[in-house]
Amino acid sequence: MSTIKLSPRQEEIIKLVKELEPITSEQLAAKLSVTRAALRPDLAILTMTGILEAKPKVGYIYSQKPSYSLIYDYIRNIKVKDIMSKPVMVDENTTVYDAIVHLFLNDVGTLFIESGGVLTGAVSRKDFLKMAIGGTDMHKVPVGIIMTRMPNIIFVEKEDTAYLVAQKIMEHEVDSLPVIERTFNGSKEVLKIVGKVSKTNITRLFVKMGGNNQVG
Amino acid sequence: MSTIKLSPRQEEIIKLVKELEPITSEQLAAKLSVTRAALRPDLAILTMTGILEAKPKVGYIYSQKPSYSLIYDYIRNIKVKDIMSKPVMVDENTTVYDAIVHLFLNDVGTLFIESGGVLTGAVSRKDFLKMAIGGTDMHKVPVGIIMTRMPNIIFVEKEDTAYLVAQKIMEHEVDSLPVIERTFNGSKEVLKIVGKVSKTNITRLFVKMGGNNQVG
Repeated sequence: MSTIKLSPRQEEIIKLVKELEPITSEQLAAKLSVTRAALRPDLAILTMTGILEAKPKVGYIYSQKPSYSLIYDYIRNIKVKDIMSKPVMVDENTTVYDAIVHLFLNDVGTLFIESGGVLTGAVSRKDFLKMAIGGTDMHKVPVGIIMTRMPNIIFVEKEDTAYLVAQKIMEHEVDSLPVIERTFNGSKEVLKIVGKVSKTNITRLFVKMGGNNQVG
Repeated sequence: MSTIKLSPRQEEIIKLVKELEPITSEQLAAKLSVTRAALRPDLAILTMTGILEAKPKVGYIYSQKPSYSLIYDYIRNIKVKDIMSKPVMVDENTTVYDAIVHLFLNDVGTLFIESGGVLTGAVSRKDFLKMAIGGTDMHKVPVGIIMTRMPNIIFVEKEDTAYLVAQKIMEHEVDSLPVIERTFNGSKEVLKIVGKVSKTNITRLFVKMGGNNQVG
């Protein structure tokens, strides 16, 4: 598999441009004792990766603002369905105590509440802790009492981008978002929960992106 | 600012290679009615970005495994110091109840315990919840009793990469890691806490990477 490594000549070009900018391709070719044509592929790589900028009628300058649009494009091409996990769900009549046990058994930070596959609520470690310091009897109170209820839950869909999820997670200051699928019950639209995406999924993706040269 | 956008000709090359692979540069040049020399910069871009693979004596093929080494390199160049946040710290004699209140007031998921600036422990929402379902009196028990104590805390340093943090977070299944600085107290090395990095910082970085064409 090929990787983008700058060649020694490309490194040398960058060094020259940094020293002598603006510098034309003729001047660069002269410095490197090669023809302009021979430099063309290198200069194409360096400008398209945003390392150098070509100023018409001036010459090449070293870009203070390298472009990361490959990263940008890449990130925006990863879909929710590529990174989502299985949601852990409980019924809203489950006691808070049993729900917390569920949370630990499944090692998740958020439980989703459903009724017949339809998303009705969500409850996080933060909600549970808030209740715990409130002194409520967690063996008696059902999770339905403390959960965040639809339609107040931010959600995403399978075809949304990983970028959108991360953005919503940061904007709404939550750890995890349900992934829903729109179906119809007669003429009424219902939201079935089919997955979840959390900061953990984003962090895992980040490790995957940095861990090898390919993803997916 | 320049961005990497494939040119119409590059798109056309990819299309031809997909259809006719393996295909030589002569054949591509003929199909596109241009000279081989004119194609050279485009083919350099397409192979160096890993979109096409050049097989010696065979021709170009469409890579099923595009290389993302720009992303790879980029991710490995971001340092902990570029993304870390201020750690929220409490003394180990703080009651669990007060510590949880601290957690909410600062809207963090993990508290770090220090003594004279030296990291001695860490306690997370998960630890607090575990204690809550255990029925311990959180007004009496000090946080020092339930915290994870040094040397059992995974930490990173300012010059480590964001990639390493993300990797450690996933490997050790924690939400947040302290950032420490090694100093000496006489001949004894002590670890001062100077920051923290969490899944939230990684998610924020991810949004930043996808949100515009440059970072930092």
